[in-house]
Amino acid sequence: MLGLKCESNAEWIARVSANPAVLLPDHAHCEKKAALNAIGFINRYPEKMELVSEMSELAEEEITHFRMVVKLMTERDIPLTFDQGDPYAQALHSMIRKTEPEKLLDKLIVSSLIEARSCERFSILSEHASDEELRIFYKSLLASEARHRNTFLNLARLYYKDDIVTPRLDAYVEFEASIVSSLTSGPTIHG
Amino acid sequence: MLGLKCESNAEWIARVSANPAVLLPDHAHCEKKAALNAIGFINRYPEKMELVSEMSELAEEEITHFRMVVKLMTERDIPLTFDQGDPYAQALHSMIRKTEPEKLLDKLIVSSLIEARSCERFSILSEHASDEELRIFYKSLLASEARHRNTFLNLARLYYKDDIVTPRLDAYVEFEASIVSSLTSGPTIHG
Repeated sequence: MLGLKCESNAEWIARVSANPAVLLPDHAHCEKKAALNAIGFINRYPEKMELVSEMSELAEEEITHFRMVVKLMTERDIPLTFDQGDPYAQALHSMIRKTEPEKLLDKLIVSSLIEARSCERFSILSEHASDEELRIFYKSLLASEARHRNTFLNLARLYYKDDIVTPRLDAYVEFEASIVSSLTSGPTIHG
Repeated sequence: MLGLKCESNAEWIARVSANPAVLLPDHAHCEKKAALNAIGFINRYPEKMELVSEMSELAEEEITHFRMVVKLMTERDIPLTFDQGDPYAQALHSMIRKTEPEKLLDKLIVSSLIEARSCERFSILSEHASDEELRIFYKSLLASEARHRNTFLNLARLYYKDDIVTPRLDAYVEFEASIVSSLTSGPTIHG
């Protein structure tokens, strides 16, 4: 469970399995936004060399994933659409504190939770996506999502003491579970 | 000359050759912004599949280049700094028309010109950078900049008729040359 407090519900699993033409464009935008998030860290904290190195590797990997999703979509004649937004991620971001040093800690924790939840959902999709090609595809992405989750937590523990990281992470894990339990189970990665 | 109307001047060549610690962070930001520019095209024109495909490949390549520059900087103990901005690119962007379909055409032309000018400057750096490692590095990037310039022009010619593209490109080439001749020759990629 990668430290998450609740599992995705059966209703989401059923809806996302039946709607690859909604799932895939949403997934493409998730990968793109993950790359943008990584670049955002670089823009804001250019002096932190470990962070810049990790985030540039991550940005490259997320863009590679974006290309993989777009290729699958092209083969299936599924067009990319405008980004419809991600209420789950927006709710997590809304709790990020506004001033440093708390802000960076919160941003790293939020990013780690989004990677962890994506990993949980890719795991479900690796068993329940609508066809074999998609199930294999989601299985192939699992390990990198789990690794990215650890990348963000390792950076948090590099820049902050454990007794600062742990209580904030615990609180955010509770908050993440409450968000997930209130989702509308739309056929998107974080629906 | 990749369709450009003027060459970079000797004063810029001398200053940039003497200042790798200014050049490299600026170059890193150029590669990062090129990736962001490609992602911006995807965000704005998701329905154009050829554009999405080309821009996602380009974004990946620009992030790869960003990582290469950051690696060189790390080995040289040169820190990344906050992005200082790029008056050259800003001047080109300022002339982009505000409404479609002119806006996309102008954005593609501006991007092609920035790639062409970067190619010209990398070519100079491949002969005049401060040390052999940098000269080899800039030589290794030349071909991709020229290719990217063509990617943008090919997209312009895919989405617009030649008699629309050519006069606008000609006007922008003149404008680009006037911007370059007024630059302050700072030790940056577009200085």
